[in-house]
Amino acid sequence: MRKLFLPLLLALFTAGAARAADHALVIQTDFGTKDGAVAAMKGVAVGVDPHLPIFDLSHENTPYDIWEAAYRLKQSAPFWPAGTVFISVVDPGVGTERASIVLQTKSGHYFVGPDNGTWTLVAEDLGIAAVRRIDENLNRRAGSEKSYTFHGRDIYAYTGARLASGTITFEQVGPLLAPKVVSLPYEKPALEKGVLRGTIPMVDFHYGNVWTNIPDTLFNELKPAFGDKFTVTIFHDGKEAYRGVLPYVRTFGDVKEGEPLLYLNSLLNVALALNMGSFSQKHGLSSGGGWTARIERAP
Amino acid sequence: MRKLFLPLLLALFTAGAARAADHALVIQTDFGTKDGAVAAMKGVAVGVDPHLPIFDLSHENTPYDIWEAAYRLKQSAPFWPAGTVFISVVDPGVGTERASIVLQTKSGHYFVGPDNGTWTLVAEDLGIAAVRRIDENLNRRAGSEKSYTFHGRDIYAYTGARLASGTITFEQVGPLLAPKVVSLPYEKPALEKGVLRGTIPMVDFHYGNVWTNIPDTLFNELKPAFGDKFTVTIFHDGKEAYRGVLPYVRTFGDVKEGEPLLYLNSLLNVALALNMGSFSQKHGLSSGGGWTARIERAP
Amino acid sequence: MRKLFLPLLLALFTAGAARAADHALVIQTDFGTKDGAVAAMKGVAVGVDPHLPIFDLSHENTPYDIWEAAYRLKQSAPFWPAGTVFISVVDPGVGTERASIVLQTKSGHYFVGPDNGTWTLVAEDLGIAAVRRIDENLNRRAGSEKSYTFHGRDIYAYTGARLASGTITFEQVGPLLAPKVVSLPYEKPALEKGVLRGTIPMVDFHYGNVWTNIPDTLFNELKPAFGDKFTVTIFHDGKEAYRGVLPYVRTFGDVKEGEPLLYLNSLLNVALALNMGSFSQKHGLSSGGGWTARIERAP
Repeated sequence: MRKLFLPLLLALFTAGAARAADHALVIQTDFGTKDGAVAAMKGVAVGVDPHLPIFDLSHENTPYDIWEAAYRLKQSAPFWPAGTVFISVVDPGVGTERASIVLQTKSGHYFVGPDNGTWTLVAEDLGIAAVRRIDENLNRRAGSEKSYTFHGRDIYAYTGARLASGTITFEQVGPLLAPKVVSLPYEKPALEKGVLRGTIPMVDFHYGNVWTNIPDTLFNELKPAFGDKFTVTIFHDGKEAYRGVLPYVRTFGDVKEGEPLLYLNSLLNVALALNMGSFSQKHGLSSGGGWTARIERAP
Repeated sequence: MRKLFLPLLLALFTAGAARAADHALVIQTDFGTKDGAVAAMKGVAVGVDPHLPIFDLSHENTPYDIWEAAYRLKQSAPFWPAGTVFISVVDPGVGTERASIVLQTKSGHYFVGPDNGTWTLVAEDLGIAAVRRIDENLNRRAGSEKSYTFHGRDIYAYTGARLASGTITFEQVGPLLAPKVVSLPYEKPALEKGVLRGTIPMVDFHYGNVWTNIPDTLFNELKPAFGDKFTVTIFHDGKEAYRGVLPYVRTFGDVKEGEPLLYLNSLLNVALALNMGSFSQKHGLSSGGGWTARIERAP
Repeated sequence: MRKLFLPLLLALFTAGAARAADHALVIQTDFGTKDGAVAAMKGVAVGVDPHLPIFDLSHENTPYDIWEAAYRLKQSAPFWPAGTVFISVVDPGVGTERASIVLQTKSGHYFVGPDNGTWTLVAEDLGIAAVRRIDENLNRRAGSEKSYTFHGRDIYAYTGARLASGTITFEQVGPLLAPKVVSLPYEKPALEKGVLRGTIPMVDFHYGNVWTNIPDTLFNELKPAFGDKFTVTIFHDGKEAYRGVLPYVRTFGDVKEGEPLLYLNSLLNVALALNMGSFSQKHGLSSGGGWTARIERAP
């Protein structure tokens, strides 16, 4: 009987080790959840490792909107443990010459997908450690050679799952590229003579809160205390779209229902809201190119 | 070699035991699925335990609608095994003085989130075993001290994952409170002189079926047989909104397409429907405060 | 001490074996994601096996649309490993006489649900190995005897989880039926005298691409080369709804933005699209009964 112990033990140990190497795989697309495409991607990943922990970031990304994909990654990736592998497929250029890469950040996260601007904000926030081009000869689902329009399933899900499960190392993804990614241009926040300037990268569409890209670190140079009032002006293509005076508070319930407030959102950026209402809808505000904000102490 | 056996075995056993202690974590929010907020919550939970089984109840809860959140928990929680941990974040008062608690029910389920009425129905259906206030000094994501508006990520996902994974015991959540929760008021069902009265807690919005809060146990006091006819009257703020005679049947297909029926829904409450149609839309009916039903045998 | 080794080892081994036997459970419904019904189904499955890997195909299936359910399974099931168990609950006849079955395909996949046409396309694509009727005396959630309208929770989730987890074998599902399933009728693609004819089984609603059921194998008999032009005519109930000449290309980006293209979609069927636009919306095209396509080389 004893002779059975060692092989049994080793088998068990190996199984344990294999599972211990698993990291989460997190998927973002603009495919929607009505379609079978996301399930096809997950099927490929489960085929690589039946016990891989697989999660959704979102599949409701506005079709083709790469900036939105970049922002959703910024919003969620830092809260996942090192080793987590993110796939993002918002890929209007699928099958064309844009590169398919894996980005390793200094935080130890991995990002798999097209190098089309999707990685702009995580590269900046988490730091680029290395970038590799996916070698499609090694890292492509068997039998997918005739398919040119679904890299999400045939290359990214397959490669992401192999990386997350430890089936391949980062080195086995493919050749090293220069440590940079395609970046979408946007205006950096700035403070000059007591006036903060920034952009509106995203409206928290669900509640209507308006988020700026001005971080708490910059805002704190104005030495704000809870209850202090600030004049906020929002411009669209340079034209004033909103102007108001808002109190800086900790949280929504610190003002009455329907009243406006200035607060630090969950990414610690300056944001504007109505308690139990939609600031963006009330004032007709949106986000993206051309939307900027100016914030200063109220007189 | 044999000296290696015991430590190896113990390591394996411990790993096995750790996994065996995992319970599912189920998350409900009103954040929507387009946003990155739910993924940030899951990232925090995976950071606590990379192999925690994490599920969604729903993230499409109507923003701020606490009653709806309470009803969705009633609808799903009893079907999960004891030990399952539910997080619900429909939390208009985030960051204000409402308590953050963990409710343990007599059924062995745990409920994590704000004590704002969310637990009304599961407390009633499953029974309160104990309630603890979350001690935010011990049970808060490291580095989240400056964040006041996302307890779902910083406190509830973190605490829920620690509880579900066995990282902390229920006792380690924080101090014991009185065994009660904030309850939303609603009218209880009643039977008097052959007339059933109840409310419309929810319209099964997807198919348009109208659900009452009258349970089978009360309905059965009328000794109904399949095929018997019942007069149903629905009132909105006391005014008659619908009146009709419906057959009591087992299931939708027991009447012709487009025909009305009275049946026991999946929670064994009396409900009204059209086979392959929308009862609520056809008759302009809705649910919540002010919507009541009266049911009696047809003459 | 040594006497403890064997039982410990066996316990560990058994646990390992049990986990190794787990296959993924994939769920499709038309319940929507706002409701608690899908979560109730998952709770039942987790009650069977707390570590079962559970995934969503989609819950946004158009209510009662069995064809759409059949197509989503065709689109995703082949990409999952053998042993995967699919549940599909688009079931207008719940509780009536339609049979509840498990279909085993030659590819080694299992399909659990009502035999109402849902399995039309996977049966055809993957081949029928065997069909069993679910014995509801053995395979029904305890305590669900009074519930007639939610077989998804009470029978299919329970049986699917038991099968995926190895709690029961396929043989234990219930008695063998004739190896066939209820099939929805549809027109097969055909090539005659250089003219391809087929149907429009689905519009990729999210992007507006129009998919035919003409496979690459049939299309290749026309010996197409990238860049060749094809005349495409689409008919609705026999009347011409669209006529145009499109280039055959590898992928969307091979034509200019807004330009039309003919390509092989991710299922290797002939499809029509606009690069970065909606072909179906621009030309008012839809899918399903009455929509057919005719494709031939442009003169």
